[in-house]
Amino acid sequence: MTKYTIGVDLGGTNLRVAAVDEHGVDEHGKVLERITLGTQLSLGRDQVIDDMCAAIQGLKDKHCASLELVGIGIGVPGIIDMQSGTVREAANLPGWAGFPVRSEIERRLQTQVTLENDARVATLGEKWLGAGRGVDDMAMLTLGTGVGGGLVLGGKIWYGMSGMAGEFGHFTVEPEGHPCGCGSRGCLEQYASATAVVRMAKEAAAAGAKGLRGLKELSSKAVYDLAMQGDQDAQEVFRRMGRALGMILADLVNGLNLPMYVIGGGAERAWSAFAPTMFEELRARSVVYAASVPDGQVISGTMIARAELGSDAGLLGAARLPLM
Amino acid sequence: MTKYTIGVDLGGTNLRVAAVDEHGVDEHGKVLERITLGTQLSLGRDQVIDDMCAAIQGLKDKHCASLELVGIGIGVPGIIDMQSGTVREAANLPGWAGFPVRSEIERRLQTQVTLENDARVATLGEKWLGAGRGVDDMAMLTLGTGVGGGLVLGGKIWYGMSGMAGEFGHFTVEPEGHPCGCGSRGCLEQYASATAVVRMAKEAAAAGAKGLRGLKELSSKAVYDLAMQGDQDAQEVFRRMGRALGMILADLVNGLNLPMYVIGGGAERAWSAFAPTMFEELRARSVVYAASVPDGQVISGTMIARAELGSDAGLLGAARLPLM
Repeated sequence: MTKYTIGVDLGGTNLRVAAVDEHGVDEHGKVLERITLGTQLSLGRDQVIDDMCAAIQGLKDKHCASLELVGIGIGVPGIIDMQSGTVREAANLPGWAGFPVRSEIERRLQTQVTLENDARVATLGEKWLGAGRGVDDMAMLTLGTGVGGGLVLGGKIWYGMSGMAGEFGHFTVEPEGHPCGCGSRGCLEQYASATAVVRMAKEAAAAGAKGLRGLKELSSKAVYDLAMQGDQDAQEVFRRMGRALGMILADLVNGLNLPMYVIGGGAERAWSAFAPTMFEELRARSVVYAASVPDGQVISGTMIARAELGSDAGLLGAARLPLM
Repeated sequence: MTKYTIGVDLGGTNLRVAAVDEHGVDEHGKVLERITLGTQLSLGRDQVIDDMCAAIQGLKDKHCASLELVGIGIGVPGIIDMQSGTVREAANLPGWAGFPVRSEIERRLQTQVTLENDARVATLGEKWLGAGRGVDDMAMLTLGTGVGGGLVLGGKIWYGMSGMAGEFGHFTVEPEGHPCGCGSRGCLEQYASATAVVRMAKEAAAAGAKGLRGLKELSSKAVYDLAMQGDQDAQEVFRRMGRALGMILADLVNGLNLPMYVIGGGAERAWSAFAPTMFEELRARSVVYAASVPDGQVISGTMIARAELGSDAGLLGAARLPLM
């Protein structure tokens, strides 16, 4: 019987579930069916788990006659304790910290469940079916509400001694910079997330930037649109983002010398606004990058690639978890 | 027949050669004999290679009847091209760049030779017989004329795609800081090497620091001695060093979550002057470190350890190369 898995992408806004055939075309996964629901956070944790389990059960019932379910993978925006299968910290999921998510869902659905951090499942998705499918070693930065990271070495997620590796969003950019929720200051997350774009735009507006002051709604999308229309202050926000990304990419290239670094997450859509400064900074700061990418042309050097799966990276990566 | 290897530590001042028994006591290497010569750089590259080969040949002749030579490992202060066995860049070895060191020595001695960067062989030495002997994953920072680095993952040196991984000395500490020889600015090397200690002390002296102005010779040792005598300006030099080290260790802990980070190299002798600030900065900047090392007591968390082999790390690590 052909095997399949179910992946869940538990976001702050959407709850997405997909059944993925393990093989599909060319030994790559093939999405059999996907379901998108709103994440009803305001109704409490139990309601969200009920909705999730109902969606998964629906997929199970539909495919049980012809396919064998290997397991369920769930991507969660928070710090996961892999051993106990609990969410250790999840700023955007009130009431979830400490709750035994894995065992509760396993009990209800009688199927093996794997929990994983959302940035890691996105990394796994891009490695499996996206930008990183041709390499064994890669790092990924996901630019969203925060900045997440994932590291793949030898084809496998690198967890580190206590499962906390890949926190590239908390590498220091400005030693005395903006305070970060992690307790440090000037972390990458404070310059390269969607939240940071909005904060930097607000700061510029308060300092008198006319175009930014004129925006009805100060969202990262609105700041990007303004930058694309030629507004210098909006462009400077993305140049700061690019400089921060280039500096940390330089550290990662100098330290790990991987063949590929993938940039993903919602704020990656502003690529055309931040990438030129990012590459400029990376080239200036990394002797390893400059040595492996001859001036102006990529031959066989370090690749800095845009993610290819968009918001599907987390969903597909979650579906990959039971196969790892 | 018992096997042995010969390690060479080619430094700017000393040329050291050792014959090491592969097993020795407890499956660990045992030094059979060591030779220390001056590195006669002023007489040219060929003279240094002559001296090195004569010392190695002496050891070979002495042990050939009773022991089998597996190979020769050489640690070189520079960037090595592993595939061709040449020195790509070596600021302190004029005339060596581009020269086919490996094939020349193999031709003369009829034995397999492995070249490696000096920070990497020191890392390998500490992993084999020093601070890292109990772990499979570790990173090392060598604080010397510059700041070198080495990374061991799964018991093996992590080279990266083009053999250039481990350049932790060029992680950015101060985005607009002191220019670095690598082309960037504000690299760790500009705050945590012996050279940096002297530069920062000179800057402080020029700005009026009395104790530092009174030193006959401005060496890193003299600045350290002054700091130990309570001089505030000298102490501030080492606090800057500690802050820079703590910041980059925070990146490495957040990014890789390894069980051990080893600090070695000549300037590590100033540990008592820089370590308090280093730990303070690391704890403030790394949520992963703070989570794995409960306040004030190390239980089973991230270890920041002093190197144990001193200047023997490179010599023993070089002897380990033919066995990897």
